[in-house]
Amino acid sequence: MKVGVVIYPSKKLQDFANSYRKRYDPYYALIPPHMTLKARFDISESQLNDFSNKLEEIAQKYQPFTITAKKISTFHPVNNVVYLKVNPTEELEKLYDDINSLEYGNPPEYAFVPHITVGQELSEGEHSDVYGQLRLLKLDFTEEVDRFHLIYELENGAWNVYETFLLGNK
Amino acid sequence: MKVGVVIYPSKKLQDFANSYRKRYDPYYALIPPHMTLKARFDISESQLNDFSNKLEEIAQKYQPFTITAKKISTFHPVNNVVYLKVNPTEELEKLYDDINSLEYGNPPEYAFVPHITVGQELSEGEHSDVYGQLRLLKLDFTEEVDRFHLIYELENGAWNVYETFLLGNK
Repeated sequence: MKVGVVIYPSKKLQDFANSYRKRYDPYYALIPPHMTLKARFDISESQLNDFSNKLEEIAQKYQPFTITAKKISTFHPVNNVVYLKVNPTEELEKLYDDINSLEYGNPPEYAFVPHITVGQELSEGEHSDVYGQLRLLKLDFTEEVDRFHLIYELENGAWNVYETFLLGNK
Repeated sequence: MKVGVVIYPSKKLQDFANSYRKRYDPYYALIPPHMTLKARFDISESQLNDFSNKLEEIAQKYQPFTITAKKISTFHPVNNVVYLKVNPTEELEKLYDDINSLEYGNPPEYAFVPHITVGQELSEGEHSDVYGQLRLLKLDFTEEVDRFHLIYELENGAWNVYETFLLGNK
């Protein structure tokens, strides 16, 4: 099965992101707004328990931490993806590294740029329009991250949560 | 915010249910196939942590248990809902009672009929057709229940997982 690891931000931030994703993100109905920590990879059901245990061990090493997001950015011209940029913090980067150092899935293809996608698979014209409009927004999100999520993909492309991991909450 | 408590069955069973929900359930894109343990109710964000702690206490009292599902049934004529009937077990009923005895939300409107919806909001004609077709399926699902899920509703009507609770896994 296909799995991934994400942080789901607060409902408030998810509702904000969805208000744009509805129009600009073809994956709107398949997964809630999220920050990816480990990209989609294939795992056998027999390995899932071990992967989950290792994520739990990682979670216990952390305490809840704060992230901020204040601007819209883009991966253009590499990808026509418009996103809410999450300011990197030491904890977030360390959490990302810990999860990606596990012997599961592929090494990351890109450097870690923490973000929450609000639009993707946009044509060049759409991308200019959407980014031009959204970059003008005055944003100031402060979020407490106290958990992350192991998610899996159903046959229809929708994602569900297999397990949540609370940071340091044991 | 609106929350609920559900069991998400295995990916295999979810994929099965979705193959029918795609056509027969208008909530197909908003929530994965599930068995409801506590119906949707309103909770303040400040109460969420307490509710979550109480669910964790309940989860620790249980060990993983097995459920079976072998037939399609219907709530007709009360509701035109076609569902996969989950055979009640003592553990499942006790878990349901424990969760519904917490001082949160409304008391259940109906007796507990464990089920996974595969079609709803069907016209009389659709209901006859769908139920007539699906009741002929030879089904034999056996599932281990080792967790349940506290879920919340986003503004767009989609549901996400706030926390998973592992049965007895501490």
